[in-house]
Amino acid sequence: MTRDPKHPGIGRAVVLLSGGLDSAVALACARRDGLAAHALSFDYGQRHRAELVAAAAVAKALGAASHRIVAVDLRAIGGSALTDEISVPKDRGPAQIAGGVPITYVPARNLIFLSIAIAHAEVVGARDLYIGVNAVDFSGYPDCRPEFIEAFEHAANLGTRAGVEGSPFSIRAPLARLTKAQIIRLGADLGVDFSLTHSCYDPDEAGRACGACDSCQIRRRGFQESGIPDPTRYTGPAVRG
Amino acid sequence: MTRDPKHPGIGRAVVLLSGGLDSAVALACARRDGLAAHALSFDYGQRHRAELVAAAAVAKALGAASHRIVAVDLRAIGGSALTDEISVPKDRGPAQIAGGVPITYVPARNLIFLSIAIAHAEVVGARDLYIGVNAVDFSGYPDCRPEFIEAFEHAANLGTRAGVEGSPFSIRAPLARLTKAQIIRLGADLGVDFSLTHSCYDPDEAGRACGACDSCQIRRRGFQESGIPDPTRYTGPAVRG
Repeated sequence: MTRDPKHPGIGRAVVLLSGGLDSAVALACARRDGLAAHALSFDYGQRHRAELVAAAAVAKALGAASHRIVAVDLRAIGGSALTDEISVPKDRGPAQIAGGVPITYVPARNLIFLSIAIAHAEVVGARDLYIGVNAVDFSGYPDCRPEFIEAFEHAANLGTRAGVEGSPFSIRAPLARLTKAQIIRLGADLGVDFSLTHSCYDPDEAGRACGACDSCQIRRRGFQESGIPDPTRYTGPAVRG
Repeated sequence: MTRDPKHPGIGRAVVLLSGGLDSAVALACARRDGLAAHALSFDYGQRHRAELVAAAAVAKALGAASHRIVAVDLRAIGGSALTDEISVPKDRGPAQIAGGVPITYVPARNLIFLSIAIAHAEVVGARDLYIGVNAVDFSGYPDCRPEFIEAFEHAANLGTRAGVEGSPFSIRAPLARLTKAQIIRLGADLGVDFSLTHSCYDPDEAGRACGACDSCQIRRRGFQESGIPDPTRYTGPAVRG
């Protein structure tokens, strides 16, 4: 991809970087596409704050041009097991994980994060935003579906200076149609060090993954199916689905 | 408007309340429509923090069911005269104010605020969101246009549990097609105490309005055209347009 002086945003991307596996691969995709990647993470009151430490390590390892952590106090809103004092479900089988919107759903999370990412893109002069959502192993989150991403892009381009002035944003979801195993193989091809990434919703005080929450289980099965060794050290055993 | 037990959201609204004149009238509209109004304000690092004090007073005076202030650190993003150490423009005439996106544009502000309001609506069980944008005296902000509001509503309903589960949100912009003078007359009819509202982008340390920034000028002219006395005590003289 080449730089176009009429469109300064070409050449730069904003990447939503949670510290998890998927967003690390999304960052690697932005780098593969020849873009300077401005990574953005959120301190939203999540209980699994180990992911912010992971995000910083991933940004550095994959050569991000910058990495910012923006504070948004979603605890003031509440309504999720990820921000409230509600127990994260454990040891659910694949059928349970696939069924409906889970308790770990954070109301409008990707809507909020993408909105702030659009603001960041306007400021740094990026026009491409990368987000690591995927709709295959999406675990019931409505804000990970392609139809949401497309509708958001349209709204963002109507509601921002860049969109109105004829230099629209594109939301890139390069993992949208991939299974977790395919994402892991793609990340391995692009040189992602998965030992730096954090998926667990309920780590112990040392930040170690529980192995039993939905997110750990999806990660574990993804590595098994990919044929790539899982570098994660889980504190609990694998669950049989 | 009556409550429908199948749709618990009917009966409750979330209202974006900045502390300015328009959002106070939007809150009064939600109350006129028979809704319990959950007001939401944002501490986003704005220099004109007097508006948060005003928001609390307006919420109380108009009988809001609740009022929350959510912190979002948009200074970490930057890019606006309202959050950065950039001078707010003064003494611009109507033609200048109407021309293009102003320096006081905050990147993606309404996109971000509406996204967080959607999250709040999911949690409190509201389905109507009120926002006091208007496209007539909108001062060049792209995120105040009806086409943006409509596109946002569509995206929000695709990206949230409520939307997916068949209980969609409606974004109400009751001031969208009104002039500032019409908004002031509507607010007066609905009992809004305009002396509680704050419009100035650059107040002095006591919170008094400068009278010369774009927002003060639009407010001043609105009161003049409405025939309703302006209760605001400005520290500077009116500008001739």
